[in-house]
Amino acid sequence: MARIVMKFGGTSMAGSERIRRVAQIVRSQADAGHEVAVVVSAMAGETDRLVNFCREANPLYDPAEYDVVVASGEQVTSGLLALTLQALGAKARSWLGWQMPIHTDKAYAKARIGNIDAEALIASMQSGEIAVIPGFQGLSDENRITTLGRGGSDTSAVAIAAAVKADRCDIYTDVDGVYTTDPRIVARARKLKAVTYEEMLELASVGAKVLQTRSVGLAMKEGVKVQVLSSFTDENAPNADSIPGTMIVSDEELEKMELENEIVERQLITGIAHDKNEAKLTLTRVPDLPGAVSNIFAPLADAAINVDMIIQNVGRDKGETDVTFTVPQADLVRCTSILENAREKIGFNRLISDTKVAKISVVGVGMKSHAGVASTMFTSLADRKINIQAISTSEIKVSVLIDEDETELAVRVLHTAYGLDAE
Amino acid sequence: MARIVMKFGGTSMAGSERIRRVAQIVRSQADAGHEVAVVVSAMAGETDRLVNFCREANPLYDPAEYDVVVASGEQVTSGLLALTLQALGAKARSWLGWQMPIHTDKAYAKARIGNIDAEALIASMQSGEIAVIPGFQGLSDENRITTLGRGGSDTSAVAIAAAVKADRCDIYTDVDGVYTTDPRIVARARKLKAVTYEEMLELASVGAKVLQTRSVGLAMKEGVKVQVLSSFTDENAPNADSIPGTMIVSDEELEKMELENEIVERQLITGIAHDKNEAKLTLTRVPDLPGAVSNIFAPLADAAINVDMIIQNVGRDKGETDVTFTVPQADLVRCTSILENAREKIGFNRLISDTKVAKISVVGVGMKSHAGVASTMFTSLADRKINIQAISTSEIKVSVLIDEDETELAVRVLHTAYGLDAE
Repeated sequence: MARIVMKFGGTSMAGSERIRRVAQIVRSQADAGHEVAVVVSAMAGETDRLVNFCREANPLYDPAEYDVVVASGEQVTSGLLALTLQALGAKARSWLGWQMPIHTDKAYAKARIGNIDAEALIASMQSGEIAVIPGFQGLSDENRITTLGRGGSDTSAVAIAAAVKADRCDIYTDVDGVYTTDPRIVARARKLKAVTYEEMLELASVGAKVLQTRSVGLAMKEGVKVQVLSSFTDENAPNADSIPGTMIVSDEELEKMELENEIVERQLITGIAHDKNEAKLTLTRVPDLPGAVSNIFAPLADAAINVDMIIQNVGRDKGETDVTFTVPQADLVRCTSILENAREKIGFNRLISDTKVAKISVVGVGMKSHAGVASTMFTSLADRKINIQAISTSEIKVSVLIDEDETELAVRVLHTAYGLDAE
Repeated sequence: MARIVMKFGGTSMAGSERIRRVAQIVRSQADAGHEVAVVVSAMAGETDRLVNFCREANPLYDPAEYDVVVASGEQVTSGLLALTLQALGAKARSWLGWQMPIHTDKAYAKARIGNIDAEALIASMQSGEIAVIPGFQGLSDENRITTLGRGGSDTSAVAIAAAVKADRCDIYTDVDGVYTTDPRIVARARKLKAVTYEEMLELASVGAKVLQTRSVGLAMKEGVKVQVLSSFTDENAPNADSIPGTMIVSDEELEKMELENEIVERQLITGIAHDKNEAKLTLTRVPDLPGAVSNIFAPLADAAINVDMIIQNVGRDKGETDVTFTVPQADLVRCTSILENAREKIGFNRLISDTKVAKISVVGVGMKSHAGVASTMFTSLADRKINIQAISTSEIKVSVLIDEDETELAVRVLHTAYGLDAE
């Protein structure tokens, strides 16, 4: 018997028929003797509809009132799931964010969860009642509804799992787990039985859109075992003895799973991610002086623009250098305008931007203890004449920037090179 | 300067454009220096949509979870109206039922309002902030959302007006006031400047669908001055000096208004209502014995069927009598089945039902001090050969049951007979 938090997204909650399917999955867990809490999103499309009403009402909307409006979507689905579970003969009730309450700060529309008063919730779960909890919402100390920002329901689920000390947090999505790479690009991509929090963070932030990054960070901080699995396959009645999806756990937990033969020994590299949403900027003939680079990046930091890869080339002329870096494509226009305004202070010659680039990353905790991971990457890409425009590395990741047209080729080449192809 | 509670129904809140219109009406009151609270319904059609979801989830739905779902409609419109008011430059915020809170009993889906903690609300109104309050909802002492039953927003508005000691509760509807009779039947019907609570209760319960009956009863109990007016005409910026709609007040208040020439002297009869939703039942040859009538009406009372007009005729045979009464048409099938089951105990011969009847009522506090009102009614109808099938009276009302086909004729004849026709 375990205590489990389950989370279902908007696609799973879109309409009575799908809610009934979710209720069946939830009840199978309760029937197996587990204590169950379920966190739900709004019906697919509903939050967009509500956000649109807010924009029509007031383009510069007050986030506190925006939260009153948009939090209603999850309120509706939590009531409906409780009703549907009751129709299946289960004991169930909804617990709204303000009822529990889920305390948050008062950054309306992008609140962060603080303390959760879970005593009554735990008592209810222990009595065999399924708790249905709207995701995405909480209560500020001004006694007003807050929301966590789009996609916040994953974070709600992890926070509740931490608060009730759940054995596991199962996130049901429209994919059935985390893969070694995008299966649409590499047909032989394999579903991973387990990844570490750190790996998941790198995979999520570089384009493997399975879980909200924030929720993974919280799971790592709180030590919550997270499982990603599909609500649409037949394998959706997991129990403590099988892992139908992908477990996201700590390094130590992963080692324990290996020792207990729950998962096979890990590869050096866990997965390969790609991201086409970066833009490359190059400033030519910047003075090669102390403080020159700071003149470029300080105003971008002030504007909260997230600069990723940075390289500084030796220029053709002495005392000058070219500086290249990447920013999210969405920030490109703003970034360009900030740099043009600072042209005199920075003292560059030309500003060249390029959105036809892709970032390819190989991720794996294994590389901490193995040399040669980067070298394999560079060699494999060079063999296929793929030109590397920039490089960045972290403890468990190596990323390269390449021409966008070569994305699929690069991912396939690397997937094979690191021995990730399925048999 | 006054303290005003305004209430807008679902038609007025249906979509961004109409909400903007409502916001303009509300702001004009705030601009006039009044302290303003606004009670809103869900967008027209939204509550039906949510109720339908509940039925799909669970035909025998748990009313506590039903309330979680359906209360969201008003939550959305209250947030949107606050945002729209802010867009017009007004200070505004929403106050949800659980926030204030509006305490109710725990009869989910049909809760009754108890105490309202209005201190923070009053302080906010006094600071010049417009309070936007979702109608129809409250909080039980189990800390769960309750709703008041369909049409409950009128009651919310009156209860809040009582709690904040408002000078007036303005109910904006899709009619512009209470008329002497249905203007679709009598073109020369006049809008009434004022009616008493008692008159309004009689007019509402017999078919003049302007206000929820429950809200009028509460207004009478709490002494809240209610005004019914339209949100669609140009006359919708009332102030303390004019009465664009119809005031619903106490007897004493009405006399004061007459003395102060705010309204012209009242007619003997205030209005004429009709109701085609009654059914007539006749049980023939019931034993004329003590307890016989009780054998008929006790089981109907147990089934909460509201019996209205009752007449007992002397039967053709000695020791037997015919009993005729009316019930709402919606209850007719249930009523018939209950009576058939009790046939032996009651001992009747035939059970005859007729839905082709209409109840016509003349209402007016003036009849308390004047004889001859009923007599005028009977004579006027007899002159037109309209047959009276049953009669019932109260202190301020005389009702007759007639053939449904003669409804319009009877209303017109009586409107003229009592001198109500507009010049």
